[in-house]
Amino acid sequence: MIQPLYSNSLSLLTDLYQLTMAYGYWKSGTAEKEAVFNLYFRKHPFQGGFTIACGLSGVIDFLNAFSFSENDLEYLRSLTGSDHRPLFEPAFLDYLRDLRFAGELEAVPEGTAVFPNEPLIRVRGPILQCQLLETSLLTIVNFQSLIATKAARMRLAARNDTLLEFGLRRAQGIDGGITASRAAYIGGCDATSNVLAGKLYGIPVRGTHAHSWVMSFDDELAAFEAYTAAMPNNVTLLVDTYDSLQGVKNAIEVGKTLKDKGYQLNGIRLDSGDLAYLSIEARKLLDQAGFPETSIVGSNDLDEYLVSSLKEQGARIDIWGIGTKLVTAYDQPALGGVYKLAAIRDPAGSWEYKLKLSEQAIKISTPGIQQVRRYSNEHGFMADMIFNEETPPTGSTTMIDPYDFTRQRQFSESTAYEDLLVPVFRKGQLVYDTPAIDSVRNRVQQQLAQFHPTIKRFINPHAYPVGLEHQLHELKTALIFGLRQK
Amino acid sequence: MIQPLYSNSLSLLTDLYQLTMAYGYWKSGTAEKEAVFNLYFRKHPFQGGFTIACGLSGVIDFLNAFSFSENDLEYLRSLTGSDHRPLFEPAFLDYLRDLRFAGELEAVPEGTAVFPNEPLIRVRGPILQCQLLETSLLTIVNFQSLIATKAARMRLAARNDTLLEFGLRRAQGIDGGITASRAAYIGGCDATSNVLAGKLYGIPVRGTHAHSWVMSFDDELAAFEAYTAAMPNNVTLLVDTYDSLQGVKNAIEVGKTLKDKGYQLNGIRLDSGDLAYLSIEARKLLDQAGFPETSIVGSNDLDEYLVSSLKEQGARIDIWGIGTKLVTAYDQPALGGVYKLAAIRDPAGSWEYKLKLSEQAIKISTPGIQQVRRYSNEHGFMADMIFNEETPPTGSTTMIDPYDFTRQRQFSESTAYEDLLVPVFRKGQLVYDTPAIDSVRNRVQQQLAQFHPTIKRFINPHAYPVGLEHQLHELKTALIFGLRQK
Repeated sequence: MIQPLYSNSLSLLTDLYQLTMAYGYWKSGTAEKEAVFNLYFRKHPFQGGFTIACGLSGVIDFLNAFSFSENDLEYLRSLTGSDHRPLFEPAFLDYLRDLRFAGELEAVPEGTAVFPNEPLIRVRGPILQCQLLETSLLTIVNFQSLIATKAARMRLAARNDTLLEFGLRRAQGIDGGITASRAAYIGGCDATSNVLAGKLYGIPVRGTHAHSWVMSFDDELAAFEAYTAAMPNNVTLLVDTYDSLQGVKNAIEVGKTLKDKGYQLNGIRLDSGDLAYLSIEARKLLDQAGFPETSIVGSNDLDEYLVSSLKEQGARIDIWGIGTKLVTAYDQPALGGVYKLAAIRDPAGSWEYKLKLSEQAIKISTPGIQQVRRYSNEHGFMADMIFNEETPPTGSTTMIDPYDFTRQRQFSESTAYEDLLVPVFRKGQLVYDTPAIDSVRNRVQQQLAQFHPTIKRFINPHAYPVGLEHQLHELKTALIFGLRQK
Repeated sequence: MIQPLYSNSLSLLTDLYQLTMAYGYWKSGTAEKEAVFNLYFRKHPFQGGFTIACGLSGVIDFLNAFSFSENDLEYLRSLTGSDHRPLFEPAFLDYLRDLRFAGELEAVPEGTAVFPNEPLIRVRGPILQCQLLETSLLTIVNFQSLIATKAARMRLAARNDTLLEFGLRRAQGIDGGITASRAAYIGGCDATSNVLAGKLYGIPVRGTHAHSWVMSFDDELAAFEAYTAAMPNNVTLLVDTYDSLQGVKNAIEVGKTLKDKGYQLNGIRLDSGDLAYLSIEARKLLDQAGFPETSIVGSNDLDEYLVSSLKEQGARIDIWGIGTKLVTAYDQPALGGVYKLAAIRDPAGSWEYKLKLSEQAIKISTPGIQQVRRYSNEHGFMADMIFNEETPPTGSTTMIDPYDFTRQRQFSESTAYEDLLVPVFRKGQLVYDTPAIDSVRNRVQQQLAQFHPTIKRFINPHAYPVGLEHQLHELKTALIFGLRQK
């Protein structure tokens, strides 16, 4: 499971139907037709009011390495159809051998707050290439955006407290753990327990000891003494192996010795029991004993709701340890991102716009070569307007709610704005400077600061306005009528 | 995110506290003390009645490759404590450089049905080594067991129908997708859409085309014709891009041409709308047109409950496509497996048994060098009894319920049984022949066939009896009293 991953290209990390469709395009001579696909989601996760875009740096790595190895082609050669003959003819495999991504990719920078229907990534190029990327791009972006969003919610709940992510043991696979640690840090965590993620991404790592350390000694005090003797500069003691408040007293004993040696008792950790009660009592014991600087770490299946509730109850926790609920996005473990065809260039050189029809309005895709314009005023962000770059807004413009065309907003020419999608690949070449992880992490907080607090609350958040520029709205409406009349 | 994973050892795929504890053992001269740890879970996922053990082959790969690279050690050298001095002294890093797994590992074979409190893996060796493996082993086994279990439930719901897994785009990261495909196949899926998983594990792959294929043509019939012209030996047509039943009629048109050419219309696929209604109507259309052999594939956020319900409603679906709900184990995206110290050898050479106390009985660990004995009779499996290999049952034996000591069962010496844990590593050397994936997959069905149907139902399943052998029960009780009296 792990070893093979090392020695293989990831270009087969896709659904078979992407390859059979690629074959279909190639056979029918339409492989090089220029197309545009948008990657977007339809609903915020966690019934929330915002989503954090994350995963672009993984997409860049993937595209830079995109190429079918001989080994990949040999595997494809072995696949057969219902007549037991090969699925793919040899000339197609030769075509794949030489294939490199040669298209354009625009994306919203990582760490940007995004909203339903907005393209996070837009791919333009030969339809065969665009199609082949669908699954891999979704796998990378869906998961990282999900976790960055969950972490940003935890950050809102924890306010200025320290947030530690330590979910690796419950993560969905190895890479599920490693990329979860990255996305959690971007979303607002301060550190991780995951050493490999620390090494790969430069995320601060934290950790001291587990229950097993205490259990391996005859008593808790002996265990604490041995630990502090070994590592006096990294002492947070887990106090709940036998009895939490007795544990705090033992930690205080050890803390006194540490002080005498010029070190400090950084923290004690509570991992079970009533965290509100125990943290308040532990705080008293520590303060009375002269350890007001010693932090209290709380953990035990925490999520943003429990952290909020504990803070309301006056729990004296300074550092929140968050695992399973964060790295698996427990209450909604998948973001339903999709990747939809939006335009194809016809032989005469003009765009044919495309949409996917559905009985549910939310599932009808939006056509066009889309860009997102985010308007702002002195209070922060006002609204996002999706437009077609082929028919950009000029002068004052009208934005229309995609689900209720009677809800409209006007923006004058002088309204301040920023267009969210930036060029990442041009003719297959990377033209984007990937920002450092700390700058992505800062961007999340800068972005969230620009939204009204009601958009960030957990229960029934206010909906941030996102609409279609009126020409795009008309294009979409006309396409829907056209298809429904067929 | 992806590239670095290729070029790195996975030995840092752990929580920092495993390394700080390792350092503590090394500093205090107890690193080589012999210890025993058990990996187990406390509750079945999905409120179910069984769990499928999966992930051992990943554990074997991990242990075979376990070794700290120079690069790993350099990173560890860079970590500092609260005094800004290094966390680890150089001699410890030298120790890690030479470290290889030298212990013993027993495990339940992949594909075995397992129950709460039963060790899936037992590690015995120098305490430092055992401790270092905790996180990685949990990451690998928790996730794969979770997904294999979910897939086995889907298999029960689908009975003899074909099950396709195609969740890659919603999986939790790349490896989350790849190992999910593996575990889903083991649990009972027949094929995957994930081409890389197909290549790496020899799982059958399936797929034809998406909505975007249809949208890229002027009309659906033209799209179907172009697809079947390109790939006449792999035709399952997605019929719901515009109107599902009209789509079936178009598929039938194309099917007639296919027939004339000596090929067949393998299937049509419904991906939206009321699957019960549409599949019944589609079946009629296909049968009337002379396509009784053409399969109907149904998909759209399906899980075991929806599949059961659709079958009860008489839906005429032959092939179930299952994605997000399976590969993320959507309704419970983490298995809460733990890894607990159970014994340490004292300097005199005898075992000191260990348990982790808790106010919740379910969270108290079990001491001992545990083995699981599965008793059976002519109807199948009767009960599992956990015993301490140091005090094995002799003659007729009594098994005691771990949460209610008044519930006891007797087994005579002549009762048939099998001990579930088998040797995998001896003195760090692999001594186990990893079975082929198809044999693991068959084992799941053979195992499930041995349990009473009430254990396999989804709502309030009957609890399969699992207990402690009476000497182990007494040991555990005595240790609890001892700790509570401290």
